[in-house]
Amino acid sequence: MAVGQKLRHVVESQQFSRDLLEEVFRRADEMRAEPHRAAGRLQGRVLAALFYEPSTRTRLSFESAMLRLGGRTMGTDNAREFSSAAKGETLEDTIRIVSGYSDVIVLRHNEEGAARRAAAVSDVPVINAGDGKGQHPTQALLDVYTIRDEIGRLDGIQVAMVGDLANGRTARSLAYLLSKFRDVTVWFVAPPQVAMRDDIKAHLDEHGVRWREEPDLHAVLPQVDVVYQTRIQKERFDDAATYEAVKGVYRMGAPEMALLGRRAILMHPLPRVDEIDPAIDSDPRAAYFRQARNGVQIRMALLDMVLS
Amino acid sequence: MAVGQKLRHVVESQQFSRDLLEEVFRRADEMRAEPHRAAGRLQGRVLAALFYEPSTRTRLSFESAMLRLGGRTMGTDNAREFSSAAKGETLEDTIRIVSGYSDVIVLRHNEEGAARRAAAVSDVPVINAGDGKGQHPTQALLDVYTIRDEIGRLDGIQVAMVGDLANGRTARSLAYLLSKFRDVTVWFVAPPQVAMRDDIKAHLDEHGVRWREEPDLHAVLPQVDVVYQTRIQKERFDDAATYEAVKGVYRMGAPEMALLGRRAILMHPLPRVDEIDPAIDSDPRAAYFRQARNGVQIRMALLDMVLS
Amino acid sequence: MAVGQKLRHVVESQQFSRDLLEEVFRRADEMRAEPHRAAGRLQGRVLAALFYEPSTRTRLSFESAMLRLGGRTMGTDNAREFSSAAKGETLEDTIRIVSGYSDVIVLRHNEEGAARRAAAVSDVPVINAGDGKGQHPTQALLDVYTIRDEIGRLDGIQVAMVGDLANGRTARSLAYLLSKFRDVTVWFVAPPQVAMRDDIKAHLDEHGVRWREEPDLHAVLPQVDVVYQTRIQKERFDDAATYEAVKGVYRMGAPEMALLGRRAILMHPLPRVDEIDPAIDSDPRAAYFRQARNGVQIRMALLDMVLS
Repeated sequence: MAVGQKLRHVVESQQFSRDLLEEVFRRADEMRAEPHRAAGRLQGRVLAALFYEPSTRTRLSFESAMLRLGGRTMGTDNAREFSSAAKGETLEDTIRIVSGYSDVIVLRHNEEGAARRAAAVSDVPVINAGDGKGQHPTQALLDVYTIRDEIGRLDGIQVAMVGDLANGRTARSLAYLLSKFRDVTVWFVAPPQVAMRDDIKAHLDEHGVRWREEPDLHAVLPQVDVVYQTRIQKERFDDAATYEAVKGVYRMGAPEMALLGRRAILMHPLPRVDEIDPAIDSDPRAAYFRQARNGVQIRMALLDMVLS
Repeated sequence: MAVGQKLRHVVESQQFSRDLLEEVFRRADEMRAEPHRAAGRLQGRVLAALFYEPSTRTRLSFESAMLRLGGRTMGTDNAREFSSAAKGETLEDTIRIVSGYSDVIVLRHNEEGAARRAAAVSDVPVINAGDGKGQHPTQALLDVYTIRDEIGRLDGIQVAMVGDLANGRTARSLAYLLSKFRDVTVWFVAPPQVAMRDDIKAHLDEHGVRWREEPDLHAVLPQVDVVYQTRIQKERFDDAATYEAVKGVYRMGAPEMALLGRRAILMHPLPRVDEIDPAIDSDPRAAYFRQARNGVQIRMALLDMVLS
Repeated sequence: MAVGQKLRHVVESQQFSRDLLEEVFRRADEMRAEPHRAAGRLQGRVLAALFYEPSTRTRLSFESAMLRLGGRTMGTDNAREFSSAAKGETLEDTIRIVSGYSDVIVLRHNEEGAARRAAAVSDVPVINAGDGKGQHPTQALLDVYTIRDEIGRLDGIQVAMVGDLANGRTARSLAYLLSKFRDVTVWFVAPPQVAMRDDIKAHLDEHGVRWREEPDLHAVLPQVDVVYQTRIQKERFDDAATYEAVKGVYRMGAPEMALLGRRAILMHPLPRVDEIDPAIDSDPRAAYFRQARNGVQIRMALLDMVLS
């Protein structure tokens, strides 16, 4: 694919072909390798962060990306004010107006499909920073980028997804993006109450991704390149005792790291609560803080692509 | 008037003479025509946005203006914290301190007269971004600028003000600024419960502006250059039935656009709720999104004038 | 001491030796004398303001400092979101992540010791902008800098601390920093309910600072170079009548200024409520707004030292 392929809006993971993914990753590599060349690329451009629900981590990651490219930022964590009873504005009207103030809009919304609706009326690129139970494509991109960066390849990898796979938006999106690559194996390691859903399994089947359900975390660890750990939320369980039992079983600590391959990595979309023991943070295979950091490079790459 | 006429604070519409208005408009034209020349004008200057009540749209419009001029911004939507019981600071003290941190203060306050009080003690220019039921002069300026830009003149125009004219700050301010021009006719198209108040009528009389009250929107539409639509709020009416009837009568939709002149425009200060049918957004005479966009140019012009 | 002494984190007043203080003051002087030379120093650097409780004045002072050095800022007043029940992240994890997004973190936290914990895990410098009842070292630095700037020296000065000395973080910190200088005399002028605590008195004794308790403000005023006024909070008193009496006695107004030496100054960390009569604001010895302004220079100096 030619350098500079046109990317207009970033709405959902599905829109990224393998070629487009490679282009994003190549640019993210560049951003990291030559931060000084990146520094002035978006000089004079303005990013508007419209957050209908606060997600400070995501907002700061985008703002950091824009500032590191020489651009400027403005925004609100309180975009819900636009559509509140008193103001009563549709998302479409808000976007039309804010797209007159800015060169790119980063949108976080509580309703699924909001990013698509915004993109349909915006005069400037819209990047989805999470829309309800829908998509959070930049998180999915940084996850895949991290695997590629840490393991050196995406074809042929074995990934264990651990924790709440039914409700975790990130595990689902990751499964989706992994299906773009060849010879991938995914292990679903989850309590039955929050097992991976059938729609994703069907999708993987269609795209030739092998998958297996294996509730025994210890059995899976020696076989995989990547453990993608996620948080299990108490409220998904009928009683506290079941939750406590499950929580202990799917926790990554020193004994689990001992079972993990020497070149494998442990990822987590963060924030973590109990599901990773902080004692293993210093293990070089603990990749979750590097993963968070990759979010800046990926977002720099995307901003650069939609704005230049 | 000479270029560079000194403008210190922007407190109220009344402070703008016709000459000063022309100067603001001339600079706003320049900002639009030559955005790249504008880009570095306020390099190194810092705008502080002090919002005692959130108004994200207005704040982003000012921030966009400052950023497009090469300046930098900081601020808060939570300025009320300064004067809260716990902190107990007067507006004057807050302004004295923030004027030590910044080169220009954009103030939004819930109390009428706050901007004037701020300007009296500030070491740096203060721009009023709305003070309670008082003034919102930059909105009024962008409204007049939009008429000039779209219709090509301000002398001799015919303007219909529609909706809640008793309580709408914007219609009142627009009437005020129109009185600076010659041979202007204003039609007040409002239900009797929210008719234009006598103080504005008296002001127009004094300044030789013709005005007529005409409750029939359809009768007025063929005669005017500008329809300035505003929102009618339910809480102004004693019973829901009256409100519903009125709402229907003063709505702009396709049938109303059919009655409007070919070169006339439809304006609205936004946000809109029901009073303009989104189906007419694509009509070239629907000027409200262009109007919102003009807010950035007008604010660029004002920032440039008070800071350079 | 050599220019460019390494300063990594700014956690507490105690870390500043006299030499380091002199270096900070020297740089602050430079920032003020040559603002244009300062303008590009931190070009391309990003400050993250993580405020777990809002303190808009402090945040704007830091942001202003960063922007005046050519750097960029991002942040949140709502950092508590990170550690809320729903997100459940430790301060350490938040800092690790945000230190991947930024070049310096300014932290305001509600818990004593938070800045130290943050500095222990951060990859980038952390500056304490107040941690609970703990430290607020940049306030203490700007206070001492103001005395030096206004009086011309720190050795040999006489300072009256007035008001609530038991609970006021700023008076305590100031006492601490004054103990670095020679031949200093401190007068504690406070109602017995909120007298200076023994730990500070012991510290001053150890460092050879003379101190005296003198409840009569009028008796002290003619003898001092600096009056450091602080607010007395109603809730520290058992009954309203005692509070009202005390409040009147420790107020600075025209009669008190008449007793103060011609070259002495009146300081206040602000915000003030009733304890300084606004009628004396125009007295050249009223230094509190200049003091607030010095906060920007001091923070510029600190940012410059930790980042360059």
